[in-house]
Amino acid sequence: MTLRISIIGFGAVGQGVSEILAHTNHNNHNNHNQHPPISVVAIADSRGAVVDEGGVDLADTLQRKRSTGTVATADATGMTALDVIESVDHEIVVEATPTDITTGGIGLTHIRRAFECGRHVVTSNKGPLVVKYRELCELARANGLHFRFEATVGGAMPIINLSREVLAGNRILATEGVLNGTCNYILTRMDDEGVSYEHALGEAQELGIAEADPTADVDGIDTAAKIVILANSLFGMDVGYDDVDVTGITKITPEAFKLAKESGHTIKLIGEVQENRDSQDNRLRVAPKMVPRNHPLNIGGTFNLASIQTELAGRITIGGIGAGSIETASAILSDILWIAGVGGE
Amino acid sequence: MTLRISIIGFGAVGQGVSEILAHTNHNNHNNHNQHPPISVVAIADSRGAVVDEGGVDLADTLQRKRSTGTVATADATGMTALDVIESVDHEIVVEATPTDITTGGIGLTHIRRAFECGRHVVTSNKGPLVVKYRELCELARANGLHFRFEATVGGAMPIINLSREVLAGNRILATEGVLNGTCNYILTRMDDEGVSYEHALGEAQELGIAEADPTADVDGIDTAAKIVILANSLFGMDVGYDDVDVTGITKITPEAFKLAKESGHTIKLIGEVQENRDSQDNRLRVAPKMVPRNHPLNIGGTFNLASIQTELAGRITIGGIGAGSIETASAILSDILWIAGVGGE
Repeated sequence: MTLRISIIGFGAVGQGVSEILAHTNHNNHNNHNQHPPISVVAIADSRGAVVDEGGVDLADTLQRKRSTGTVATADATGMTALDVIESVDHEIVVEATPTDITTGGIGLTHIRRAFECGRHVVTSNKGPLVVKYRELCELARANGLHFRFEATVGGAMPIINLSREVLAGNRILATEGVLNGTCNYILTRMDDEGVSYEHALGEAQELGIAEADPTADVDGIDTAAKIVILANSLFGMDVGYDDVDVTGITKITPEAFKLAKESGHTIKLIGEVQENRDSQDNRLRVAPKMVPRNHPLNIGGTFNLASIQTELAGRITIGGIGAGSIETASAILSDILWIAGVGGE
Repeated sequence: MTLRISIIGFGAVGQGVSEILAHTNHNNHNNHNQHPPISVVAIADSRGAVVDEGGVDLADTLQRKRSTGTVATADATGMTALDVIESVDHEIVVEATPTDITTGGIGLTHIRRAFECGRHVVTSNKGPLVVKYRELCELARANGLHFRFEATVGGAMPIINLSREVLAGNRILATEGVLNGTCNYILTRMDDEGVSYEHALGEAQELGIAEADPTADVDGIDTAAKIVILANSLFGMDVGYDDVDVTGITKITPEAFKLAKESGHTIKLIGEVQENRDSQDNRLRVAPKMVPRNHPLNIGGTFNLASIQTELAGRITIGGIGAGSIETASAILSDILWIAGVGGE
């Protein structure tokens, strides 16, 4: 049986998913794991949609998006993402619209509607999980559906599925990590070259690693959103953005790096979740921290790395490239394949 | 339904499994994942066995092993591991006898017999996998049984299940890692303190990190066995110990560390598998290598870390404590729980 998916939102991540599927559908050499063929039956962006029950032509759609700015075809113009979710027959909605961590944004509406229509959801969109994690999990469960979101935390770094599946049976006591590639790039440059924060930020903006408005990254907001997702999904907490104590990297000076270096340390922006079962006083924090030079969290550039403290296995570390179209899309693909595997049994 | 297991071999790993199960059976707080109760119905060591269809008293058996040197009870004296595998009703054999990477040892006989008797196998024993990986996988498949061996490589570091399950759909191109905690401890001390190989080895022996005869570790033999297992299980190769090019750490001098340091490097014993699909000239190698100081593979002490190069996700790193009774047993437990989950569906 073919597994039919829709892609809702066609920015870097949605396009990355399409590029991978366009490639692997022609090229099955890496299909060690038997799974049903995957067919994209609809793609929607903010201006319209393309629908084809026989399978959307992905190369053609990628081309059209680049030349016209939308995936919409003449016959599906005016069709919205919600129309696709409601009216096109398919099994999995890939929700990849832009994140809004204050309200959950349009992504929250899409995910709710997908579950109500009986479709599994795979997403890279942090907003809905930060705002309504518990409600969405319950809605999925009530409808017998899967809700997978590996791509929301750390791009290609598979911390969520590693913790929930591979480490099953191993209670997780705490986790801390370098979870924002933009901040880590800036801090790595400040450490390596002794330059100021402003200089390193400007460099990151020129390279496209930081956005023109870098606030969400450098103020620690993005890292805090990931900490909320980890707290809720790996620790069974029920917390929101306001429960996290957040400090960004904008006040760090070259002098601070000099002092850190003298004692064999560097400075990293660390997000952490620490459970305190006795007092209910859990620690959720994002802040710059001194890290010893030979510590696993001292990784350079845009890499992400998390350290997971477990009851039986001790410390486990997991790292991966924290952003990028294809890398984030690979996390979405692994979630789709997981559903394909479970559904096929 | 209760899942019944036997533990064959009752050294550090077998005892670790018993300690965890003795603890968790009384203490279900970490059972997020619903799975059937696990009951140990038999334990065998080289001198005898203890069998109880209602569940072996684990605390009592651990105590008896420590005071008498064997698990054997009066009524099961003379019963062998093979007798247990053949005649006691149970679903999973945990094979944890000492490793023999030349012949596969008694472990190979145990695993073959377990599959012939219709029992799943979970093992920490490298020998049988180095010598007869393909045969054992085929025997398991032919009998519709599971064969899990996370604990054979890197103790608590979950590289095999991460690669096979979480990274499903992501072709693995190469892997390299620090896979032997004893060597890494010695090299870390040589780097930190500028001491000789002999001095660092003596220190490791005093701490119980190196054995009286350290050959298997310091000559790279243990790392090479792990490379064979990774090559066969993650890359689908069909190779043996003789296919690996192996150099150990015994010839490394303090001067080599001094030179490495001057160029911002350290020295690590690295095992690597690199696939060359075009020429069939795969690279399987264990050798000391210069590693940049801020590289993820520069981890200290007895930690293990592997870097996995994937087609879509780029580089993923995974690290964990490379040895230890409870840590290795935790990898066995995660394999048992995986079988419990699959079997329960």
